[in-house]
Amino acid sequence: MRLSRYFLPVLKETPSEAQIVSHRLMLRAGMIRQAAAGIYSWLPLGYRVLRNIERIVHEEQQRAGHIPMLMPTLQPAELWQESGRYDDYGKEMLRISDRHGRDMLYGPTNEEMITDIFRSGVSSYRELPLTLYHIQWKFRDEVRPRFGVMRGREFLMKDGYTFDTTKEGALHAYNRHLVSYLRTYERLGLKAIPMRADGGPIGGDYTHEFLVLAETGESEVFYDSEVTDLTFGDRVIDYDDVDQCAAVLEEFTTRYARTDETHDEAIFAEVPEDRRRSARGIEVGQIFYFGTKYSDAMGATVTNADGQAVPVHMGSHGIGVSRLVGAIIEASHDDKGIVWPEGVTPFHVGIVNLRQGDAACDTACEGIEAALEAHGLDPLYDDREERAGAKFATMDLIGLPWRLTVGPRGIANGLVELTNRRTGESEEMSVEDAVARVAAIYAR
Amino acid sequence: MRLSRYFLPVLKETPSEAQIVSHRLMLRAGMIRQAAAGIYSWLPLGYRVLRNIERIVHEEQQRAGHIPMLMPTLQPAELWQESGRYDDYGKEMLRISDRHGRDMLYGPTNEEMITDIFRSGVSSYRELPLTLYHIQWKFRDEVRPRFGVMRGREFLMKDGYTFDTTKEGALHAYNRHLVSYLRTYERLGLKAIPMRADGGPIGGDYTHEFLVLAETGESEVFYDSEVTDLTFGDRVIDYDDVDQCAAVLEEFTTRYARTDETHDEAIFAEVPEDRRRSARGIEVGQIFYFGTKYSDAMGATVTNADGQAVPVHMGSHGIGVSRLVGAIIEASHDDKGIVWPEGVTPFHVGIVNLRQGDAACDTACEGIEAALEAHGLDPLYDDREERAGAKFATMDLIGLPWRLTVGPRGIANGLVELTNRRTGESEEMSVEDAVARVAAIYAR
Repeated sequence: MRLSRYFLPVLKETPSEAQIVSHRLMLRAGMIRQAAAGIYSWLPLGYRVLRNIERIVHEEQQRAGHIPMLMPTLQPAELWQESGRYDDYGKEMLRISDRHGRDMLYGPTNEEMITDIFRSGVSSYRELPLTLYHIQWKFRDEVRPRFGVMRGREFLMKDGYTFDTTKEGALHAYNRHLVSYLRTYERLGLKAIPMRADGGPIGGDYTHEFLVLAETGESEVFYDSEVTDLTFGDRVIDYDDVDQCAAVLEEFTTRYARTDETHDEAIFAEVPEDRRRSARGIEVGQIFYFGTKYSDAMGATVTNADGQAVPVHMGSHGIGVSRLVGAIIEASHDDKGIVWPEGVTPFHVGIVNLRQGDAACDTACEGIEAALEAHGLDPLYDDREERAGAKFATMDLIGLPWRLTVGPRGIANGLVELTNRRTGESEEMSVEDAVARVAAIYAR
Repeated sequence: MRLSRYFLPVLKETPSEAQIVSHRLMLRAGMIRQAAAGIYSWLPLGYRVLRNIERIVHEEQQRAGHIPMLMPTLQPAELWQESGRYDDYGKEMLRISDRHGRDMLYGPTNEEMITDIFRSGVSSYRELPLTLYHIQWKFRDEVRPRFGVMRGREFLMKDGYTFDTTKEGALHAYNRHLVSYLRTYERLGLKAIPMRADGGPIGGDYTHEFLVLAETGESEVFYDSEVTDLTFGDRVIDYDDVDQCAAVLEEFTTRYARTDETHDEAIFAEVPEDRRRSARGIEVGQIFYFGTKYSDAMGATVTNADGQAVPVHMGSHGIGVSRLVGAIIEASHDDKGIVWPEGVTPFHVGIVNLRQGDAACDTACEGIEAALEAHGLDPLYDDREERAGAKFATMDLIGLPWRLTVGPRGIANGLVELTNRRTGESEEMSVEDAVARVAAIYAR
């Protein structure tokens, strides 16, 4: 992409309404624009990151055997009256009346709707287990939306629903989700720690939240420092293998790690003192086994092997897709701007032409752009007639992890400079080596 | 994908509420389920088709140099009050009041919002031309939603907006859209004819609708039979070349082709009688140049080369993504079910195991499945313990363009049967040849 043909409305001033760094940087880098309180347009740069996250979530869900579909944003009130949540939900539910006066709502979550789909389409235990998920816009009418996309009203979420004949089956689905979430967050460049969560009014021990440590997190968290050393890495998992998935759950959730909602001083005190940590965290996902709450209320049963109708055991499992854009920035930035992890970066590499209009520089930049594209990469070529300082500042602000700088002196000797955004380290090398190096980084 | 692990709730009976064939077949094939009047869940099979269409639209938009972004579903009323359309729009606009009593709406289209984004981010003619587009859910509160996804209330649409300093520039953007739409529809397996459309209250000659001929179309159309012979094919176009794009417009819009809204008997009479046709058509897209209507009303100006502020010339260009799923079925089905064009099919090929549990058949099917996946294809393997007739009926209903049938007699000689869904023709061949043949079909 040529920057001269792109739409990247970066801001020079820091917007006064933004209280946290991710919100400031997303506005300054031209990633989002507020449409109304807590409702944002995703400008081209922000949209690229959002799509990358969405793609990774899809890939990891399908790797785990979960089936994608899509439920609508608006739902009829009847479904929520059936489960009893229509009155419980309060003012966070955006209630809508259509032209015929029918009560609708903008879905904040989809347990009722998926249960309705399930009961109409599945009748036998032979069709189970089943996990259906979607990635769709949702709405929660927060009384005080803030922190940009971190606590918006219209937000993009992946929510998946598991259906099993037995509690044991449902707990395997729970463990499988934990495994796939660990992989997902690592691919996004995040360390997200599963922490014992509060079951809320439903209760139950089977819920974990995934938290990213960041100073601006909304939750206070308490953990054994050993949990931050755990890495899922590229181990190969058979998602159908009950023992393998259970072992990962065991490995990642045995050590103390809780939010303020479930924190227990007495248990925490048993952690060796030098490993006790408290910090702040951003919630980026949650897994939840809730048994037969909705299947009982809504009559979602299957016939078992004995021909009896039994309610299905369900779980719901969410990842905050749009919120993750903010969370990644909170966890990865410096005073010059964003530092994207390679997995989600909007462009793989920036090309800075130090002397636009100089034939040798222009030709070299165009050649590098074409060579990178031939490797399946998306470079962003700053071909504007701007001074070098402004071009560097833009690249630093928008946070591309790698930058190739092309100037008249270097290119006379066939040399360009490759710069790592995170470390700031630069290395001079031939054009061919630079292209090969960048291609190798992303081939990993 | 193994059918035994998939969620494909096909219906045996024809649903009585569905009046047209695409609606009936989408319900019967387990592609959609109604959530409320005119609002649908996209079950896994339907979602795969929807995503394929979305991907092709994205690819063709970006090939033409258009920039993807994403605007939210909800919009503040203020923007529409500024353009004057808030009162004009009537009851088709779903109006919403949030918890603080602020007036919002579920966007039926995005001219106002994109104009607002433009005016805040672009100030100079040097940043033009610019085309921004998104694919997002929209809502029109139809008084009588019907025909399934063809006239739903919540629908997925691609809408793109062009910004130019001059009318000439804007008309090139218009022509470029026409070219890219022709390519898009052909990739979707459709013949969509650009027809002179009615400018509506704005007036103007610069609007064309794209219509797919189908008996169930909502519009009556009149055309010169020569227009149905035109094919865009795989010609290479430079989308920046004004003359090339204008020549395509000329080629595809010179002959008579109009909907009942713009039909003119006197001009039609000049078409040789043996080429005059009337039929019914489904609208699947529209392009529109509307000048400075919104930029005047909302103050979207740029400074030109002389330093003067001038309003930008705009156009908007839409493709009905969710509606296309229905339109494709209307254009491509038979009495057994859907016949998907290869470009959008939910699975590339079906594998039918005639004797599930037979070791040779099972092994062969698994090998074929793995070999096809190694070619990057998505087969759907019917591994259920069902009789052959039921398996064939399901495959015919859901419309996969190719089917591989594996039975004990053939496989004893290393042979399987490859069947073309459209023609019904079958050919016996070795497993290796069958895999290679299917791979070659999709490599085109």
